[in-house]
Amino acid sequence: MKGYIQVYTGNGKGKTTAAFGLALRAVGAGMKVFIGQFVKGKSYNENIAIARHLKNITVKQYGLGCFIVNTPTDDDIKAAGKGLDEMRKIIQKGKYDLVIMDEVNIALYYKLIDIKDLLEIIKNKPEHVELVLTGRYVPQELIDKADLVTEMKEIKHYYRKGIEARKGIEY
Amino acid sequence: MKGYIQVYTGNGKGKTTAAFGLALRAVGAGMKVFIGQFVKGKSYNENIAIARHLKNITVKQYGLGCFIVNTPTDDDIKAAGKGLDEMRKIIQKGKYDLVIMDEVNIALYYKLIDIKDLLEIIKNKPEHVELVLTGRYVPQELIDKADLVTEMKEIKHYYRKGIEARKGIEY
Repeated sequence: MKGYIQVYTGNGKGKTTAAFGLALRAVGAGMKVFIGQFVKGKSYNENIAIARHLKNITVKQYGLGCFIVNTPTDDDIKAAGKGLDEMRKIIQKGKYDLVIMDEVNIALYYKLIDIKDLLEIIKNKPEHVELVLTGRYVPQELIDKADLVTEMKEIKHYYRKGIEARKGIEY
Repeated sequence: MKGYIQVYTGNGKGKTTAAFGLALRAVGAGMKVFIGQFVKGKSYNENIAIARHLKNITVKQYGLGCFIVNTPTDDDIKAAGKGLDEMRKIIQKGKYDLVIMDEVNIALYYKLIDIKDLLEIIKNKPEHVELVLTGRYVPQELIDKADLVTEMKEIKHYYRKGIEARKGIEY
């Protein structure tokens, strides 16, 4: 089966969760899944569920787990660069049928990684590997290369009401 | 913790998968999840993964599993009505922290169920229950009641290239 390039972007809720839902679907079909998370560094509850119950999904994090406020630090850049290098090898090997680069668009946006390197990874990916890229601010060059792009658009959001992020729902 | 009303709608890919990703996150936080699927009737790979690995998620289907082409049949209406009745009781009991009414917007759109009944379920839901409603064509009355609404908007879709739905990726 030929693998494609999917992008989930936009300012709405549901980008990472859609990618994780897809991982769950893929596992049900007997596929192996690798999820690499850029920028993120803390343990989310979806990761806990996966570690406990879903051995065919591997999750690794390549971030410091704190928000990038203004300029990214050298440590942010180093962590993302290490992530891109690891994921290049993982994709190239073709052992995983579905590879999710979570928040990779954010890593691009803050120039933690170079888009040229990502485009090269896409270009050289084994035919059967499905690649999913998430995060706000997807650049046009990635849209051009993608087969499927969904924008998660915020129509209404409870944060506007001052509700805090909740365990099990937002993280 | 107070539960809210979330809606995932729009013509893009990622509505059901976002809801299932949320279910995975909730399970990681020790919550119990019920997923009722309207219109759908066949076994999807995400359901297979859940049945095998995630005992804190229960999935039931309230559809015939075939596309509604023109007018829904009596059997479509009966199946959806049964689903709404069952889910009313399930939500009311409050045993499940997260309840997903997958494709309920489609059931509304085809008039398989009455929006008045759904609004009543929302109004009477126990405080702690988080309710997630998915499907295209969400009516304005539901947007008004919801705390969070995300539109999954198709920017680019490989179906346009004539690619068939693929096991583990689309179903």
